[in-house]
Amino acid sequence: MIKIATAIRKGAAAYLRRQYKGVGIFFAVVFAILLALSFLGYLNYFVPFAFLTGGFFSALSGFIGMKTATMANDRTAYAAQKGLNKGLRVAFSAGAVMGFVVVGLGLLDLSIWYFFLKFWYTNVKVMASESLMIQNITSNMLTFGMGASCMALFARVGGGIFTKAADVGADLVGKVEAGIPEDDPRNPAVIADNVGDNVGDVAGMGADLYESYVGSIVSTSALAVSAGLGSRGMAIPMILAAIGVICSIFGTFFVRTKEDATQKSLLRSLRLGTYISAGIIAVASFFVIRAILPQNMGVFYSVITGLLTGILIGFTTEYYTSDTYTPTKELSKTSETGSATVIIGGLSLGMMSTFFPVIIVGVAVLISFFACGGNIMSDAGFNKGLYGIGVAAVGMLSTLGITLATDAYGPIADNAGGIAEMAGLGEEVRNRTDALDSLGNTTAATGKGFAIGSAALTALALIAAYISEVHALAPRLSFNLSITNPPVLVGLFIGAMIPFLFAALTMDSVGKAAQSIVHEVRRQIKNIPGILEGTTEPDYASCVDLCTRSSQRLMIAPAILAVIVPIVVGLILGVNGVAGFLAGTTITGFVLAVMMSNAGGAWDNAKKHIEAGNFGGKGSDCHKAAVVGDTVGDPFKDTSGPAINILIKLTSMVSIVFAGLTVAFHLM
Amino acid sequence: MIKIATAIRKGAAAYLRRQYKGVGIFFAVVFAILLALSFLGYLNYFVPFAFLTGGFFSALSGFIGMKTATMANDRTAYAAQKGLNKGLRVAFSAGAVMGFVVVGLGLLDLSIWYFFLKFWYTNVKVMASESLMIQNITSNMLTFGMGASCMALFARVGGGIFTKAADVGADLVGKVEAGIPEDDPRNPAVIADNVGDNVGDVAGMGADLYESYVGSIVSTSALAVSAGLGSRGMAIPMILAAIGVICSIFGTFFVRTKEDATQKSLLRSLRLGTYISAGIIAVASFFVIRAILPQNMGVFYSVITGLLTGILIGFTTEYYTSDTYTPTKELSKTSETGSATVIIGGLSLGMMSTFFPVIIVGVAVLISFFACGGNIMSDAGFNKGLYGIGVAAVGMLSTLGITLATDAYGPIADNAGGIAEMAGLGEEVRNRTDALDSLGNTTAATGKGFAIGSAALTALALIAAYISEVHALAPRLSFNLSITNPPVLVGLFIGAMIPFLFAALTMDSVGKAAQSIVHEVRRQIKNIPGILEGTTEPDYASCVDLCTRSSQRLMIAPAILAVIVPIVVGLILGVNGVAGFLAGTTITGFVLAVMMSNAGGAWDNAKKHIEAGNFGGKGSDCHKAAVVGDTVGDPFKDTSGPAINILIKLTSMVSIVFAGLTVAFHLM
Repeated sequence: MIKIATAIRKGAAAYLRRQYKGVGIFFAVVFAILLALSFLGYLNYFVPFAFLTGGFFSALSGFIGMKTATMANDRTAYAAQKGLNKGLRVAFSAGAVMGFVVVGLGLLDLSIWYFFLKFWYTNVKVMASESLMIQNITSNMLTFGMGASCMALFARVGGGIFTKAADVGADLVGKVEAGIPEDDPRNPAVIADNVGDNVGDVAGMGADLYESYVGSIVSTSALAVSAGLGSRGMAIPMILAAIGVICSIFGTFFVRTKEDATQKSLLRSLRLGTYISAGIIAVASFFVIRAILPQNMGVFYSVITGLLTGILIGFTTEYYTSDTYTPTKELSKTSETGSATVIIGGLSLGMMSTFFPVIIVGVAVLISFFACGGNIMSDAGFNKGLYGIGVAAVGMLSTLGITLATDAYGPIADNAGGIAEMAGLGEEVRNRTDALDSLGNTTAATGKGFAIGSAALTALALIAAYISEVHALAPRLSFNLSITNPPVLVGLFIGAMIPFLFAALTMDSVGKAAQSIVHEVRRQIKNIPGILEGTTEPDYASCVDLCTRSSQRLMIAPAILAVIVPIVVGLILGVNGVAGFLAGTTITGFVLAVMMSNAGGAWDNAKKHIEAGNFGGKGSDCHKAAVVGDTVGDPFKDTSGPAINILIKLTSMVSIVFAGLTVAFHLM
Repeated sequence: MIKIATAIRKGAAAYLRRQYKGVGIFFAVVFAILLALSFLGYLNYFVPFAFLTGGFFSALSGFIGMKTATMANDRTAYAAQKGLNKGLRVAFSAGAVMGFVVVGLGLLDLSIWYFFLKFWYTNVKVMASESLMIQNITSNMLTFGMGASCMALFARVGGGIFTKAADVGADLVGKVEAGIPEDDPRNPAVIADNVGDNVGDVAGMGADLYESYVGSIVSTSALAVSAGLGSRGMAIPMILAAIGVICSIFGTFFVRTKEDATQKSLLRSLRLGTYISAGIIAVASFFVIRAILPQNMGVFYSVITGLLTGILIGFTTEYYTSDTYTPTKELSKTSETGSATVIIGGLSLGMMSTFFPVIIVGVAVLISFFACGGNIMSDAGFNKGLYGIGVAAVGMLSTLGITLATDAYGPIADNAGGIAEMAGLGEEVRNRTDALDSLGNTTAATGKGFAIGSAALTALALIAAYISEVHALAPRLSFNLSITNPPVLVGLFIGAMIPFLFAALTMDSVGKAAQSIVHEVRRQIKNIPGILEGTTEPDYASCVDLCTRSSQRLMIAPAILAVIVPIVVGLILGVNGVAGFLAGTTITGFVLAVMMSNAGGAWDNAKKHIEAGNFGGKGSDCHKAAVVGDTVGDPFKDTSGPAINILIKLTSMVSIVFAGLTVAFHLM
């Protein structure tokens, strides 16, 4: 166990080292550009540094999360020898470290900047009024989100490519060609596969939600000024976040189980932690808002709306992707007529599953807007409503500590299972880790629903922040955000197309990276004698290295796309076009991401449903057809779908940072 | 040949009879609702009748087109015995009948209503001013598009389900299970498959473009009033359409080929007809616009923009779907690693292929808006620009006569090939029909690009017409179409989701209908002795009947969705929400339809590329993997993708007709 875990740890560390090197170059280049722009006067001089710290803290939270996860893998397997509850506690505790590191670092970075900027604008560069000071503070803090966003993109896309390339590569040659089981130490790509779970699902998800977290907080704070809610309104999101951390820690104590726990009761115990946290947050926020902002208790309803949105989207995700419900059961039935019908069925299920999340987010937008005193007739009333939408995003993300703990738990349990298998621990242990792992699939699916739902609300808050940022930069610039205004309309069109393009690029990257792994695994099996007999150890490190190199190389194109397009749209279509573009990306990206994540999750579980003995079980024709669905679903749910989350936030962030440039230069 | 063709003809007639019966009930119900609403004062009293005539003429053009097509099938096969050029001329002439029936009936219906309404408002119910009269004429004529739209939906969706259910059903049992070749008379579903080509590709496409045609003309005419271009501005779209018909007829004379024609020269000769027509239309429209609207020559540039848009979208479609170019060639290479990579590759290709169409439509919107004197600062200037967008749609569709001829030619050639095969004509004949058929695949793909591109521009004109309609109905209602206005935003979200839902429903329908065919074909092969030996004739009619019944039953849910959702959105979110909803449906629907059509076309041709002897050729593992892609692509390109065209226009049409209701009742 120690040997295997060490290999995974080393592989993950090697991946991170190389990623940080590549990302370092990217950050250096962007930093230089931002510095040049700030010298030219298009940016505030704090922006380049805020950008750096955002990236640094995001990377740090990914790093710590992954260190913890890779340390907890074998410990979970070991603890599972003693019992199910012990295994659960170890895996979940490690996940909790990840969750609280993310929220802790987020709040730390926010606080440092807040106090520094407040000091600066009260002592060094004194502002004429308090509202002008808040304006300056928040608009500087916003740009710090761009650093977090860029880092998240690399973590999500790079990790997503890595994990799926290793997975597909290991399966295609190992399982299909050589006929050796999953997680078998004879497969040269098996360690890469395990490393992938950590870099994709732990570090990637952490950086993604870190970004949503700080993004929603700073954009909502920024909206407080134009909403006329002053410094108290600005403080609310941060206070809510702080409450959330404390309540989430409290919630983690309720995650425990009995030894004879079923799948269902395990899930219930994980859920219980989240629900208890959400409940306490709701109560605490009532008193806090009554104390700080008694004139606008609507803010409280926005918080509740956000909390409920997170829970409801989780439910619908589970309904569409878990094989305890009809949709996935029916999907596994389509395997009877071959792989083509499995594909059609999964795509159709994914498309169908977009209905409820859209309705839930739509209702949340309306409630949080109007509850906060939103009023489309006056500017201040309007901004109050937008502030309400932001608060809903913050409310949703206030449970992040425990939600992320539940989510990061999955890959740890998955890896523990792999280690138990490879180390040849007894069947009982393997059964326990299987129970923990299979639960991880469900929490991963709901975690993805949570991530995309919060990304959508955060992106809406960011769009609103973008518009108020432009207002502040160029008060006399006249906006026309009507959907019939051609630049807005064309922006909407382009925005609707970009998520598709981005998904295509990331899927292609997975395909290309997987190809290179396939060749490497084939080469090793052919050239190194004794691998299949288990007498010689395969060269795990070369597979890990290959995955690392391909994923780093192949994530460049999507990353550049996400950063360049909003700038180009701004230079051609102007601020109205950018607003349309951001709206188009957010709405279509949301729908597409939900579709891809849910289709992928359903294919995965439909396959598991067959493996559990239905429709002929493992090895049957139905199973083969379902495997095709699962393979298509892998990049859907673990690369492209989640990467779109980042896309919709990053494009907003880039637009905000480059707003000055767009205001100065634009064709229309 | 006569026997087979008679069976196809009978099957098609049976399908139409049943469809018109089902559709008749739908039209009767909607007519009654409209009548009731007009008695209550929410609608003008002409609306119910305009609705009926729109449906009637649309159905009539589908009927005539299909009659011609089913008569031309065997004649084409017969003519191909004498030579390639003879075969081409027969197939293309039959297509041309279809094309010109559609445009002719469209213009006929428009003219009848125009003269009737003009007579009415000058003699019976005299209007105070000319502009008020034009306003009333155009707003009544607009609603006639809803009838055409509904009919088109049934034709497209019903036909799409029929054709793919028959195709998939015939292939799954015949080719895969029983091992008999395509188009073999021993397959009980073979006639249903041939009937499907006619009802889906001929009647469905015809009704679709009929709707775009009349929709773009009447919505542009309606915009002329608010653009301040008076009766001359109103006349322009109709005159452009008339010019288009004449020039297209002229263009058809250039479609001929030599006996030793290659695939390439065949395509060139078909294209030549379209290009010559477009060229003459451009020249003629210059003089006409100079004569009628000399003060606004920008209208001419909008026409040119429209013509170019149609041609350019055709090019990009061909690039992504034809196996003479890299994307499809690379797609066929993905078959080497199995069906999962074929699926991922095709989806990614489809997503990638949305880039250029979006950019082309975006540029077209901007050019046609600003060329016509569009100006976002004043209301009149703004409406001038919107009028320009409408003119671009009309310009694009002015070549419809010949475009549709080229398009309807495909299924005729396809059927001719089937008949040649079944009737056992010589190999030389079969080679000729194959050459004609394979060309048909390319023209079908570009035809789909043309259909969706024109649908997008038409939908934009319809949205503009909707807004000006609401303005006319409730002049004091204040609009706020800003994308940050919550009802607009939520409308955008819902609009982005509906095409996905619609695609899922239609794909599911194909799957269910195909299942029933599979069972029926299996039953016949098992129960009727001598089918596989070719001694007993299978019961073709029962398969046709089954396809007809399933497609009629399964098209109800998507149809109701398309009609109900805009009304519900209007009642809850009000006119702003509807506008957002329409914009969301149009942009996402456009992108999704392009993606699905192109992915489907590329899968089809990747399979054909392998069948032509690449990557192991027919029967190889690569071929099997490519067949999976093709099967997934079938509902993509022939059912769901094209059905979205109708969706984006129908939702606008329904919103326009029920605008009065929305203005009277709405929550927000």
